Amino acid sequence: MDSFSPSFNRLVGLLTRLPGIGKRTAERLAYHILKSPAQYAEQLAEELSGLHAKIRFCSSCGLMTEQDPCAICTSARREQTCVCVVENPGDALRVEATREYRGVYHVLMGVLSPLNRVHAEDLRINKLLERVRSGKITEVILATSPTLEGDTTALYIAEQLKAMPVTVTRIAKGLPIGSDLEYADALTLTSALSGREKL
Amino acid sequence: MDSFSPSFNRLVGLLTRLPGIGKRTAERLAYHILKSPAQYAEQLAEELSGLHAKIRFCSSCGLMTEQDPCAICTSARREQTCVCVVENPGDALRVEATREYRGVYHVLMGVLSPLNRVHAEDLRINKLLERVRSGKITEVILATSPTLEGDTTALYIAEQLKAMPVTVTRIAKGLPIGSDLEYADALTLTSALSGREKL
Repeated sequence: MDSFSPSFNRLVGLLTRLPGIGKRTAERLAYHILKSPAQYAEQLAEELSGLHAKIRFCSSCGLMTEQDPCAICTSARREQTCVCVVENPGDALRVEATREYRGVYHVLMGVLSPLNRVHAEDLRINKLLERVRSGKITEVILATSPTLEGDTTALYIAEQLKAMPVTVTRIAKGLPIGSDLEYADALTLTSALSGREKL
Repeated sequence: MDSFSPSFNRLVGLLTRLPGIGKRTAERLAYHILKSPAQYAEQLAEELSGLHAKIRFCSSCGLMTEQDPCAICTSARREQTCVCVVENPGDALRVEATREYRGVYHVLMGVLSPLNRVHAEDLRINKLLERVRSGKITEVILATSPTLEGDTTALYIAEQLKAMPVTVTRIAKGLPIGSDLEYADALTLTSALSGREKL
């Protein structure tokens, strides 16, 4: 049952196109916006309007930026020789949140997934090879997720980089810190065992 | 860790003010908007801009409307003598979805809740009494939720209407259709027993 306000129904319709937002949730969000001060709706409208023109992706690493190349790709304080390859810009932020990584990034904008019709040419893999070929890079850290698709993508990239004079590494798989061995799945435990380190 | 785009961060910040939307979800929604065609962001911006000016609440029943009084309050095909009292506009839509109710509505815009500092004067109760006093109304159906607060609100309104020449009814409480008696809670079952009907 739609409400008696076409504007409200249109807003609800648009909100349901967001991931994880069903009709009821969309209605709840729209009510909330309507009950909030009008200023809030106006601020949202302002940020959304021209969003795609304001935010671009760095032509080198693929991170979201408002200047091209991005602040990280042009920073003298980052090691421009080490590249961390991630699936999407959000993953780069997670790595950044560790405050441990001082290199630069390369965003693939997805993972290889033939079933979903995502092939090598749909990702920014060629762009990565190009960056490596340009000669400045000495290490490529493959930080795709330890899933079937993430692993496949990492292996594919490693294969492509084989002939080039760079060190290719993969982030470690093992038990998460604070977890209980009792609840670890067999695959993770196998990885943890085979990746054991000498103390 | 915020992204490197101030526009993106502002949008995420605004989205986290919506109910049930945390930082991660807000980021996911913002990415989705960014990955969708620019047209989608523009449509959203357009609907949000001036939303409060476009949508008003009917001065009589309190339903959302773009004309005042609303289509239901002015319809000759609805029984203007029977008023269904609900907590919010969404509840009226649920009643409307039954396609069984032909009367009009009165939205309270909340329930009595002293702990949350919602008192009788914060709801549209006086407006309801005013509508009843005007003389056209013969039945008031109290359709607030069967919760502690909904029941209290219904009782309060019934008390206020006692001296007026209207029939005051409360929606039935009992087992939901399709439910299993095995899983019914004691309070619901008590209501179902005391509200039993002769066949």
